Amino acid sequence: MKFNSYLNKIKEYVAGKPIEQIARDYQLNTKDIIKLGSNENPYGPSPKVIQTLKQNSNSVHMYPDDSFYELKSVLAKKFDVNENEIIFGCGSDQIIELAVRAKAKIGDNVLTAGLTFAMYKIAAQSVGANLIKTDSLIHNLDELYTKYKKDNPSVIFLCLPNNPIGDCLDTDEVYSFLEKIDSETLVFVDGAYQEFASYKDKKKHIDIKDLINRFDNVVYSGTFSKLYGLGGMRIGYGISKSKNLKALYKLRPPFNVASLSISAALSALEDEDYINEYLKHNLDQMKRYEDFIVSKGYSFVDSYTNFIQLEFKEDINSSVLASELMKRGIIIRDMSSYGINGIRITIGTSLQNDIVLKNLDELL
Amino acid sequence: MKFNSYLNKIKEYVAGKPIEQIARDYQLNTKDIIKLGSNENPYGPSPKVIQTLKQNSNSVHMYPDDSFYELKSVLAKKFDVNENEIIFGCGSDQIIELAVRAKAKIGDNVLTAGLTFAMYKIAAQSVGANLIKTDSLIHNLDELYTKYKKDNPSVIFLCLPNNPIGDCLDTDEVYSFLEKIDSETLVFVDGAYQEFASYKDKKKHIDIKDLINRFDNVVYSGTFSKLYGLGGMRIGYGISKSKNLKALYKLRPPFNVASLSISAALSALEDEDYINEYLKHNLDQMKRYEDFIVSKGYSFVDSYTNFIQLEFKEDINSSVLASELMKRGIIIRDMSSYGINGIRITIGTSLQNDIVLKNLDELL
Repeated sequence: MKFNSYLNKIKEYVAGKPIEQIARDYQLNTKDIIKLGSNENPYGPSPKVIQTLKQNSNSVHMYPDDSFYELKSVLAKKFDVNENEIIFGCGSDQIIELAVRAKAKIGDNVLTAGLTFAMYKIAAQSVGANLIKTDSLIHNLDELYTKYKKDNPSVIFLCLPNNPIGDCLDTDEVYSFLEKIDSETLVFVDGAYQEFASYKDKKKHIDIKDLINRFDNVVYSGTFSKLYGLGGMRIGYGISKSKNLKALYKLRPPFNVASLSISAALSALEDEDYINEYLKHNLDQMKRYEDFIVSKGYSFVDSYTNFIQLEFKEDINSSVLASELMKRGIIIRDMSSYGINGIRITIGTSLQNDIVLKNLDELL
Repeated sequence: MKFNSYLNKIKEYVAGKPIEQIARDYQLNTKDIIKLGSNENPYGPSPKVIQTLKQNSNSVHMYPDDSFYELKSVLAKKFDVNENEIIFGCGSDQIIELAVRAKAKIGDNVLTAGLTFAMYKIAAQSVGANLIKTDSLIHNLDELYTKYKKDNPSVIFLCLPNNPIGDCLDTDEVYSFLEKIDSETLVFVDGAYQEFASYKDKKKHIDIKDLINRFDNVVYSGTFSKLYGLGGMRIGYGISKSKNLKALYKLRPPFNVASLSISAALSALEDEDYINEYLKHNLDQMKRYEDFIVSKGYSFVDSYTNFIQLEFKEDINSSVLASELMKRGIIIRDMSSYGINGIRITIGTSLQNDIVLKNLDELL
């Protein structure tokens, strides 16, 4: 049986190995494995979230509230936007997918930075669109603008801050760029790590209400997977003018978010103290990696996220290092496949960072 | 900003009211509301599932195992199929969506029975395909075949048993039909309620391994939402030849199922006694509705599911009845919008059924 021919171009996404398999492959105990490869909040969500999950475990047979009544109301207040300017997804991944499916079609171009979140390519390919990247790995707005003029993309992605590198454009630069983009091109602003950037540097802060009110063609996305410690729960959101979201809502499958995920997100939003503590901790602990790598004579990318990219000189091969760390039960991201001799490490708990830094000290 | 023009034809899906809103609208206490409108397992999942959820609440910050390593292995054994013949979705809804997106394109036809699961239309429209229905509300294979020859659909849906009516074709009839369908047409066999049908009548039983081995063009789907009591967890599966699933995997978004949902499904599969007890209870309780409605001089559709359609004569208006039940805190499905003067009731717990039957007795 033949399927749609544009699928031929798509390479199937292959998931990373689960911890259990790594444990088997490397003869480790799963408890001893430190996973700092996927930028999860290492402390997990607020204890109030865990309490909510336990309390609500008894009602998982009931379908979720597909209107997201309460969560939508809370989020609308938080961002001072209208309820019809919010849509929820199975992770912000799904908002990316819905936006691309609504806007792009076979043969269209979708424009991104040279090295950015993998989901943009997956979403573009899933509708048979072409992914166009800048030569610069980080977001270079001049280059993005040149490509925009040349390739006439239907969607442009800005990842602010950028995963997997950690860099972040200033919001006023972004605004200047957006002013030059025609109103028929959808600009998707991915704010998965935006709270980390805002906390570190006000110049990176995006006021979502202001953003969507100034730019009719922008769809913003946020997630509960990073700051809020709900990576396993698959819940994120999109914010845009309601006339744009109408198109996304038409493609949104009913019941796309699990009921426990909705309750967890609600609880997570209620515990601001917990979040602020994590934001502070993240920066404090990141400094340890910065100081360490400089002391070793190597460099790092100034990060506005909860991960940091460490870059080596020729005396170190990042793949060898990543493999050596893996043998010791430490999972980080080797950047060599992106042409970078470096590794990306999620900022862990103090204890996890102690262990990682001790091992790096031995290996570098 | 304009979106893909085929979206203009799509009417946005509007979710049913959440219980909380019904409580507000009708000045009821949420605890007093009996929701028998969405065919959830009224007893919820096995207590072992709830235990698992509570135990795993602490690790929701970690991304799910996107390889579904353990669950895939268990399900492959259960159905005696290969692991690469299984794909998981955010409910079996997502399997429906992926199959349609992989196979159908703008302007294609998608063929279904006259009255069947709403998701088929949503999926067809989401790629700009046309939904073609038989005049018969229930599955009429002759009519489906005639439409197939005339309209050359790229996808045909068979819902076995059929939601929302409850009827079910015999498997040998289905096989005879499948033999007449060309190998380039994808036939999607939706088995969301299949376990209920198999339990009641062996002639309705589908051997999934046999089905996909005989028919290269079939994609089967199952769910944990109904029998297993996990409607809120959003997890279902698709089973087909691996060469078909390769196409679906290309469109499957990474991390499409929450980690707790995967654990819950695993636990649910382990407790077969619980499931068998529910299957027996469901049939016993259904008999109460059958006997009741006949005693009142009305009729019912012989159901192979966990719900039953009661049909009235002209002296009863199903919308008025549904509205009256709602005022009393009982949510069922009025079938009048489908041209049927009847209501669909999910078979509840014994206690729920006592209350529903008492109220129906007063109103009929």
